[in-house]
Amino acid sequence: VREAMAGWARAVRGLLLDVSGVLYDSGADGGVPIAGSVEAVRRIKASGLKLRLCTNETQATRENFVKKLRGMGFDISVSEVTAPAPAACHILRERGLRPHLLVHDDLVPEFAEVDKTNPNCVVLGDAAENFTYANLNEAFRVLIGMEKPVLISLGRGRYYKETDGLKLDVGAYMKALEYACDVQAEVVGKPSKRFFESALAEMGVPPEQAIMIGDDIVNDVGGAQRCGMRALQVRTGKYRPSDENHPDVKPDAYVNNLAEAVDIILQEL
Amino acid sequence: VREAMAGWARAVRGLLLDVSGVLYDSGADGGVPIAGSVEAVRRIKASGLKLRLCTNETQATRENFVKKLRGMGFDISVSEVTAPAPAACHILRERGLRPHLLVHDDLVPEFAEVDKTNPNCVVLGDAAENFTYANLNEAFRVLIGMEKPVLISLGRGRYYKETDGLKLDVGAYMKALEYACDVQAEVVGKPSKRFFESALAEMGVPPEQAIMIGDDIVNDVGGAQRCGMRALQVRTGKYRPSDENHPDVKPDAYVNNLAEAVDIILQEL
Repeated sequence: VREAMAGWARAVRGLLLDVSGVLYDSGADGGVPIAGSVEAVRRIKASGLKLRLCTNETQATRENFVKKLRGMGFDISVSEVTAPAPAACHILRERGLRPHLLVHDDLVPEFAEVDKTNPNCVVLGDAAENFTYANLNEAFRVLIGMEKPVLISLGRGRYYKETDGLKLDVGAYMKALEYACDVQAEVVGKPSKRFFESALAEMGVPPEQAIMIGDDIVNDVGGAQRCGMRALQVRTGKYRPSDENHPDVKPDAYVNNLAEAVDIILQEL
Repeated sequence: VREAMAGWARAVRGLLLDVSGVLYDSGADGGVPIAGSVEAVRRIKASGLKLRLCTNETQATRENFVKKLRGMGFDISVSEVTAPAPAACHILRERGLRPHLLVHDDLVPEFAEVDKTNPNCVVLGDAAENFTYANLNEAFRVLIGMEKPVLISLGRGRYYKETDGLKLDVGAYMKALEYACDVQAEVVGKPSKRFFESALAEMGVPPEQAIMIGDDIVNDVGGAQRCGMRALQVRTGKYRPSDENHPDVKPDAYVNNLAEAVDIILQEL
């Protein structure tokens, strides 16, 4: 690994970290930190490297999400998190879009300032229990009733694992609405290029001086590389050995976990 | 229209009719016959032409479906209906597949004779109110747990209209599961070639001597034409004027309704 990273790790000025599967493992109990990750975040901060959490989390506001991470011991503040809902709010304002929301109840406060009367787009998040037959039909009717349907999807994940089993993620419902309305959703969140670019802009670091560290071969690694970043895949979270044979995406290096990645990067500096 | 059909209507020996939107308009009240269609079915039968109803209906058993049609005055028997669920049962038996069902409660009796223990495939129909978050996750988990997931979808419609508004059809949920599991569903029902071919076999009529009459430009008209049949689109049911500019499919002729189609065909004979 050290050899794979020799040469370029030296130029690094900022790290982007995925959260679930890298910092902690999620679950109904709130989740548990991955071994060594609390200390790894502390070391990144002490090193002077810029740090940004780049997450597709849409089941909570950033405030509550950060509160949960701090509760686990992570030294993180809200201003260090790039998440889809605030990015979507920015786009909605920019384009004068008024959303019909199909999202998790706990995410709704992120859209408090957004005009939601007489909707001219649908914003879809990981709504979980809110993905009812009635709610999906309602979102569909709002979309199909538009002259030119606008569907904004907060991420495009296929599924994720919780303590009580696998759950369909927002991407599956996005595909259902795309097909029914014959539209293509605009994805806000990883792996969208614009999303990574705004995270980099917020850090003030150009892509060639940044490393993305994530457990998702497509959304973390592939997305970051398409923006000109180097990307490491950790062997924690949703990582599976078969990822190492992915037909399209190859990380710049594999690391066993975040702690190992930080070890190597800090030694190179 | 008569000119468009002159020459080939003469060779016709059998008619395949779509049901909803051709014979009747569906709705929560059970639906109402389309003007002239009860008499049109009677005239087809009196003419000696073979008749077959070719439907993607999956919200009821064929028995109950036919009961409803007979209640509206249509002279139809169960043996004259080709529908996805019995066709799927045939395929399940043929391939030793044991389905996990995500279908409408009223369709379940069609699968009474099928072994459903230890499922090795998922059969998806228009489950309507059964399309809950929990049921979709369950079907997903069954599929993703298979070494090679087998998803059988009873039709692939995008949506349909009921008296209380538009509803997502089975195709939207099919796309969600296809994406989540990275599989391609096998469609049983229109526009599948095999489905039309089994309807023709049951009539004992070759495709070049059969006409399909439907309101769905893709599933009725396009599907039948790919099997070598002629196909008429009626301007009833889900027909929309924009169908006449469809990029890929062009019916052999348009007719205002079933009654007009039967008028012309019987005069040509």
